Amino acid sequence: MAEYEKVVIPYAGIYAWVQEIFQAAGLDEEDARLTADNLVTADLRGVYSHGIIRVAIYVKRLQVKVNNPAGKPEIVRSMGATAVMEGHNAMGQVVGVHAMKLAIEKAREYGTGFVAVRGSNHYGAAAHFTMLALPEDMIGISGTMGSTLIMSPWGGLDPLLGNNPFSTAIPALQRDPIVMDMANSVVAKGKVFMAMKTNQPIPESWALAPDGSTTTDPNQAFLGTMRPVGDHKGYGLTLVTGILSSVLSSGSFGKEIEDLYEDFSIPQNIGHYMQAINIAAFTDPVKFKTRVDEIIDLMHNSAKKTGVEQIFVPGEIEAISARKQMKVGIEYPRALTDELTALSIELGVKPRM
Amino acid sequence: MAEYEKVVIPYAGIYAWVQEIFQAAGLDEEDARLTADNLVTADLRGVYSHGIIRVAIYVKRLQVKVNNPAGKPEIVRSMGATAVMEGHNAMGQVVGVHAMKLAIEKAREYGTGFVAVRGSNHYGAAAHFTMLALPEDMIGISGTMGSTLIMSPWGGLDPLLGNNPFSTAIPALQRDPIVMDMANSVVAKGKVFMAMKTNQPIPESWALAPDGSTTTDPNQAFLGTMRPVGDHKGYGLTLVTGILSSVLSSGSFGKEIEDLYEDFSIPQNIGHYMQAINIAAFTDPVKFKTRVDEIIDLMHNSAKKTGVEQIFVPGEIEAISARKQMKVGIEYPRALTDELTALSIELGVKPRM
Repeated sequence: MAEYEKVVIPYAGIYAWVQEIFQAAGLDEEDARLTADNLVTADLRGVYSHGIIRVAIYVKRLQVKVNNPAGKPEIVRSMGATAVMEGHNAMGQVVGVHAMKLAIEKAREYGTGFVAVRGSNHYGAAAHFTMLALPEDMIGISGTMGSTLIMSPWGGLDPLLGNNPFSTAIPALQRDPIVMDMANSVVAKGKVFMAMKTNQPIPESWALAPDGSTTTDPNQAFLGTMRPVGDHKGYGLTLVTGILSSVLSSGSFGKEIEDLYEDFSIPQNIGHYMQAINIAAFTDPVKFKTRVDEIIDLMHNSAKKTGVEQIFVPGEIEAISARKQMKVGIEYPRALTDELTALSIELGVKPRM
Repeated sequence: MAEYEKVVIPYAGIYAWVQEIFQAAGLDEEDARLTADNLVTADLRGVYSHGIIRVAIYVKRLQVKVNNPAGKPEIVRSMGATAVMEGHNAMGQVVGVHAMKLAIEKAREYGTGFVAVRGSNHYGAAAHFTMLALPEDMIGISGTMGSTLIMSPWGGLDPLLGNNPFSTAIPALQRDPIVMDMANSVVAKGKVFMAMKTNQPIPESWALAPDGSTTTDPNQAFLGTMRPVGDHKGYGLTLVTGILSSVLSSGSFGKEIEDLYEDFSIPQNIGHYMQAINIAAFTDPVKFKTRVDEIIDLMHNSAKKTGVEQIFVPGEIEAISARKQMKVGIEYPRALTDELTALSIELGVKPRM
């Protein structure tokens, strides 16, 4: 790993800074708060690929109004446990929170709720929304159409699919919750982007260069395609996640989606789905969460391969990172906070570094 | 691939034969029909790992009553769009059909239905149940606790997890439906079992020998553990699928599950989940299915890598196999039909070969 200069910023400081930037870019206070919360929480959890590294592109899209700063999501259809939400081109972070809250309301009444969303934008880390279900003693499930076509159908060459990530969050009692959040590419393209920013080489398994060859150069990978996890299986997962996200809701699919980073002419019309499952409809929530604790302990206590110090469940490494960084501050590459400083000056916001 | 003798049996012939075997093993006519339908349809679709290769072990479990031939599933809890079903140790094939039909009924009323199932058994191919949603213009989703502990938590050595497969079926208009059905192991253990039966070597990526080394010997792999797809990602998927299947419903988890093939003392108490999503609650089903056709065409028409003749969507190869084998008969290794013949003689059923 190449060396790069690091800085540390307290959680509250970076949160307030990012919120101010988004307010300066045209969002109202609440929407700027929701967007900052999404990005800074991702960094706090160590999921830097979905953190403030995205501020610059989001601001650019708001400035040229390809993403509507004043957009407010609307429920356009509601039937029993289901609904369709039109995002009206608001921030994905804003639309996503409204949609998951609606799914939670539905689950309170019907045991489960499933909300299909269109007219949205890149929503950040899927786990941000599924974790909203946890304090309600619910399981949260969400998937989204990726905002950049980065994957080919298995055996094909054309990048027709996003990495279409999905997440499931399951509450525990005394342990950290189980929070799975995976892209269907071996890694999210954001990790390639982060490697570019930090001048790190990438593993050969992550991506293919534009000519189809393997590469360790993040710049080449950024121009090429990402490899699906489990090859044909990951292709299947990403296709299905895309259809659940964008065909139920009438969002965009395939070549209809203009690139998050490269097109500023038309809205992306990203689709998501949000599901909440109310544990109390099935069993006693304390019994459920006690059982989840036992399962986590079962995993932790497995015999370990030589060289493995600890076994984790999904989301646990992120929860440990969040606890630590909440205390000592969030570590960033200097290049990234410099970018935020430049952007702040441009927007008339006082830089906090 | 080693050579082995092949036989071909018409679909109707093998269906009736397998149904008779299960009736002789104690199932009533309808439950025997549901079980035969599940297994023979899997073979028809070329999914031999979940076909009649399982007849012998199912019959054995029925004979010793560790699987109750007279068990009838019961709805023990129902709240809005959700329900809990107790399988009363009936065949997983029987319980699964009742549970998915209930999810479909719920989805008709509430837009979606989610049924958690316990007290069941190995249910065969997950796709069998999700495809029940297709003629209703619904999306079917199902997952199950695997019946054999074959996978370790990532970094661990103890086989604490099943391959916990899950499936999503999505209707198309004029194309074959999209039917994803994947195990979270690189391949289902049934494929290792099939390789044992046919004396085929297996790829090194499939499994680990009991000492943790890679192996191409299916007999060694059968005694070892299966490798999760995408390593830590597959581990996360299988953990989450297991919790959705068995913790919501109070089914068995981890070491509580005695092996399908090796223990005949206590019921497995397998958990599943079944979800149906009613497309009409979200959008016009014809519009939806037309869009799915377009997406399938988009995948088909991608530029292809050198050497790739055709690009498929999930379930398409199986649909092509089913059409062909419905016409010309289902091809089996002779060793497998010989096993069925021996079993038939034991049960007083006239062999159909």
